[in-house]
Amino acid sequence: MSGTTHYPLLDTIRSPIDLRELPVAELPKLALEIRQRIIEVVSRNGGHLASNLGVAELTIALHYVFDFRQDRLLWDVGHQCYPHKLLTGRHARFDQLRKAGGVSGFPAPSESEYDLFATGHAGTAISTAVGLARADLLTNTLRRVVALVGDASIVNGLAFEGLNQAGLLKRQMLVILNDNQWGISPTQGGMAEYLAKFRVSNIYEDVKQRAKQLLPKLPVVGKSMFNVLNHVKEGIKATVSPHQIFEQMGYIYVGPTDGHDIAHLIELLTALRDVDHPVLLHVHTEKGKGASWACAEPGKFHSPKPFTLRDGKAEIIKGQGKSWTSAFADTLCAKAATDRRIFALTAGMADGTGLSRYQKEYPDRFLDVGIAESCTVDIAAGMAKNGLRPVCAIYSTFLQRALDQVFQEVVLQKLPVMFCIDRAGLVGGDGAVHHGFMDLAYLRSLPGMVLMSPADEAELSAAMELALHLEQPCAIRYPRDNVPDPGYGVSPPFVTGVSRLMREGHDATIIAYGSAVAAVLDAADLLQTQQLSIRVINGRFARPVDLDMLREILVPGHVTLTVEDHSRDGGFGSAVLEAAQDAQLPTNDLHRLGLPADYFIAQGSRSGQLAEAGIDAAGIARQLFDLLSNPTAVPRQQPFATAPRIR
Amino acid sequence: MSGTTHYPLLDTIRSPIDLRELPVAELPKLALEIRQRIIEVVSRNGGHLASNLGVAELTIALHYVFDFRQDRLLWDVGHQCYPHKLLTGRHARFDQLRKAGGVSGFPAPSESEYDLFATGHAGTAISTAVGLARADLLTNTLRRVVALVGDASIVNGLAFEGLNQAGLLKRQMLVILNDNQWGISPTQGGMAEYLAKFRVSNIYEDVKQRAKQLLPKLPVVGKSMFNVLNHVKEGIKATVSPHQIFEQMGYIYVGPTDGHDIAHLIELLTALRDVDHPVLLHVHTEKGKGASWACAEPGKFHSPKPFTLRDGKAEIIKGQGKSWTSAFADTLCAKAATDRRIFALTAGMADGTGLSRYQKEYPDRFLDVGIAESCTVDIAAGMAKNGLRPVCAIYSTFLQRALDQVFQEVVLQKLPVMFCIDRAGLVGGDGAVHHGFMDLAYLRSLPGMVLMSPADEAELSAAMELALHLEQPCAIRYPRDNVPDPGYGVSPPFVTGVSRLMREGHDATIIAYGSAVAAVLDAADLLQTQQLSIRVINGRFARPVDLDMLREILVPGHVTLTVEDHSRDGGFGSAVLEAAQDAQLPTNDLHRLGLPADYFIAQGSRSGQLAEAGIDAAGIARQLFDLLSNPTAVPRQQPFATAPRIR
Repeated sequence: MSGTTHYPLLDTIRSPIDLRELPVAELPKLALEIRQRIIEVVSRNGGHLASNLGVAELTIALHYVFDFRQDRLLWDVGHQCYPHKLLTGRHARFDQLRKAGGVSGFPAPSESEYDLFATGHAGTAISTAVGLARADLLTNTLRRVVALVGDASIVNGLAFEGLNQAGLLKRQMLVILNDNQWGISPTQGGMAEYLAKFRVSNIYEDVKQRAKQLLPKLPVVGKSMFNVLNHVKEGIKATVSPHQIFEQMGYIYVGPTDGHDIAHLIELLTALRDVDHPVLLHVHTEKGKGASWACAEPGKFHSPKPFTLRDGKAEIIKGQGKSWTSAFADTLCAKAATDRRIFALTAGMADGTGLSRYQKEYPDRFLDVGIAESCTVDIAAGMAKNGLRPVCAIYSTFLQRALDQVFQEVVLQKLPVMFCIDRAGLVGGDGAVHHGFMDLAYLRSLPGMVLMSPADEAELSAAMELALHLEQPCAIRYPRDNVPDPGYGVSPPFVTGVSRLMREGHDATIIAYGSAVAAVLDAADLLQTQQLSIRVINGRFARPVDLDMLREILVPGHVTLTVEDHSRDGGFGSAVLEAAQDAQLPTNDLHRLGLPADYFIAQGSRSGQLAEAGIDAAGIARQLFDLLSNPTAVPRQQPFATAPRIR
Repeated sequence: MSGTTHYPLLDTIRSPIDLRELPVAELPKLALEIRQRIIEVVSRNGGHLASNLGVAELTIALHYVFDFRQDRLLWDVGHQCYPHKLLTGRHARFDQLRKAGGVSGFPAPSESEYDLFATGHAGTAISTAVGLARADLLTNTLRRVVALVGDASIVNGLAFEGLNQAGLLKRQMLVILNDNQWGISPTQGGMAEYLAKFRVSNIYEDVKQRAKQLLPKLPVVGKSMFNVLNHVKEGIKATVSPHQIFEQMGYIYVGPTDGHDIAHLIELLTALRDVDHPVLLHVHTEKGKGASWACAEPGKFHSPKPFTLRDGKAEIIKGQGKSWTSAFADTLCAKAATDRRIFALTAGMADGTGLSRYQKEYPDRFLDVGIAESCTVDIAAGMAKNGLRPVCAIYSTFLQRALDQVFQEVVLQKLPVMFCIDRAGLVGGDGAVHHGFMDLAYLRSLPGMVLMSPADEAELSAAMELALHLEQPCAIRYPRDNVPDPGYGVSPPFVTGVSRLMREGHDATIIAYGSAVAAVLDAADLLQTQQLSIRVINGRFARPVDLDMLREILVPGHVTLTVEDHSRDGGFGSAVLEAAQDAQLPTNDLHRLGLPADYFIAQGSRSGQLAEAGIDAAGIARQLFDLLSNPTAVPRQQPFATAPRIR
């Protein structure tokens, strides 16, 4: 059914209906197969590994007890949904995980009725669950709601806000805290230390014994359940420490319990299923369970690239070339050696942003705040106020979560915080939930904000050098990709609002922003073969835009194209257009290429996505060629079809 | 010193240095004067009242014990800073509270060295304080940090994230929880219910007695303090219930204590000042303290307009005309009568958004989530998923806090959530921290999002009618202002992407967005007196823009102006410009007016602010007149001066 490997149990499961036909005693075997299947595919395709290995039993138990065609299951963060996908009709197609046209690495309503929300950002599930539950309350619909949240997410402010609301519900609401002590990096903060206390004592057996004694006696549904369960809870409380935080917020707290004991999980979930009150079930799982190498390095195997498995050892296949992330880490380490004011922060992305390397060299000048982007930005603001030079390394898609703090604590105070925005633009396999498609749009109207993007590693260093000398906030964006190799020689210094000429030409001009420079230079090469001579400008700054450059370039009849790995609406091209219009420059021959503004590009390879958006070298060359052949051609469609007019 | 009224003590205080010369016994009198002064000025100017009356004693005690030229004081939300301003050199100028060129209603570093951060959004102080504290740790600077947070803010996710971080600090960090059970509206959520438990028992005297016995014996500084204080705390714990939430997160918890007993507050703060560990001091205050009418209706007197005081009764002076907020409430109530799917949500802004009226009529279809914008949006998404039509009423400036949830839970799922964005544009007295200057910029690149703005009350109803029929997310923006009276007659239905012709004319065209329509029609009247005939288009949609209309209007040589109460960068004008460029329409005679992109407009009247931005009727007329007289004139400066070029 799935390529070469045979999965005796998993191959028989087309949906959770089939799952529920299996005897409980068979389920641990199924969990093994699920793990095997995940390792098989992720080793080939890359993807989220350790967290998925951890929730195999929990996912089986959930689908065994609930029917999520009716009931509502929400995956917080979403990247731990692989076992869920394997059990809900996507086992056969799972070879195409994260591939174009294949299975998304996150819940996707377009794939299955079992996927309710497409998610990839943390901390949202409980709040969304509250909305589902309250809507059903209003319409007297009886659907159970289950929100599954990791411990790394529970410390997110939004998760806390959701807990604060869910605890008030006067109906069923099951929040499962999947506690593995790890997000992408080890979970941070006082709450994490608090939860950790309950790891040190080995209390699983006690809980299990007591629960087993009590649970069979429980009635099935109804109000009375509440009181009985309170007694179960009291019973459990007698053995373990009370989790007053959750209880004080209105939950019946159950746990912690062993998240790898399927039979017990099924018993617990069956007992909790119809409790007419918010319940928090605290489950301990092991991130990487079943693969000793993943358990040993859960950060490394959180979301690895393809890897080989030999003699029980996993070896991640080295990618060709050097990533922007590595280039950032190298540059930051070099600058930190001479600039003692540098302090690097991230929000649960130490590995992903390259800061884990920096952290080793400068542990005193590093802080991973955990999945709490807003807090990270405000801590950076406080540090800048007291004279440091904070460098906030956050993915573009996650910086969306801190826009208001960038505005109030940083921009309004004119503080020199440097935002290093990784994963800006299309992100490949992670797809729509993670594209960094709008950072320019949401940062561009902030007074005093300087926005820049380098074209190669030398420019990244030059941009950061300028940033360290600015007395105002700035952001530097770069993609989830490799730096061009070779680069473009010695980088002229970055000077605010000044672009760089990359190549002379007279038939047309392309102004590229950041990572688009490489594709544009290749496009110019392609057009050269058509006897077209293209000037290439590296825009460098989306704010302020290089107006002197525009004055030189924008001449009536001279076709000029902007290219960026960002939404066409509100991005670099818009900034160029606005600046040109303000300066009364002719804009009739100015055109913009960028990401489509009317839909989200799905998972796939980054190169495939760039091609889909028409901003790879071939696409750029083709569109510019068309423009030069037929100057009135419009490069792209409008985001909306125009509706019939009524006046 | 301050107009007619004489303040024997307050008049002598130019800074906290003078304050500290007063004997403690005089301080309650000073608190009375502070309240009197605040009531005097706010009754004339409007402003934040009840919360400021509540913190008079606490503020006095803080400045009596700390020296905030060295130590660091952060006001969460910031609107409760009036007593602080009166004690730090702004008593004389306080008559000009919230006026142009006068004293800001929020902390303002430009006014005083005692104001550290300009703030107006909730939940930020603890995180910022962590940054200040960590920076000082790194540089071995010894400055005490105090963050003062209200109970309405502490339930905000960002505040929780901050608490989670601050609890880990290995140094002094005083978080004061100012608990008055109210934000703008009564505080919401499980946490609020938890805190409320400690109100019911009258335990102040006990705490006070025990603390008095223990505190004098405490040493002044150092590590040992920690242990001793733990015992104080234990002593207090014996009388009151333990606040395990804070203790488990790493704080020494002290309280709750009476926030109106200055002498005791001074004792407590003196004892806590040099504790080398995070401390949470829980203070109970009364919102509106000292004014029975404000205590009775703290929501009404949270941020009232000017009012009269007669016979101990306060009467808010009725403004002329009907506000957009009222128009929204009326419209929503009318639609909810026939559309059972409507469910209204807000985030601690029930009064400010007009929803408190709706709440009375439809209590079952209303939810105030408290100051938790992210959570509010996600709850709305869940409700939309289950078939309701959620209406999220949130101020423009606060919706910035939920951008990521608008993206992931609403837009990516294509859910029909209606965002009703009040306070869009310039907000008058609240100034820079509250302007809604960038909602279009941050919403405009979201695929599938429909953005509209009505010109009068009838159009608001028509826009909401369309919104209820859309199967996709949308946002409707309107200002903190009155609806035009009379309006513009019967509103043609809103049709996605279709504008409305308001007035014919042939010398030039103005395309106005939303509230700008009124000013533009007035400008057209003014220009009529100069024999200029101006066509006025009501844009209605910033996304999608009416391309058919643009095709008709944009003719070479015909001057066209866009006008909006939003940043010039990335707003409606940019959308028009982009659409025109994509359609290859001539844009050389297209110009944009809007808010300046290079600085923040300070507090003042909204009309004065509109004039400053050049988007009042006179400003629009003048600029269009100049353009028509001299077509190459550029209406506004570039945001940045262009730096010298290096290539």
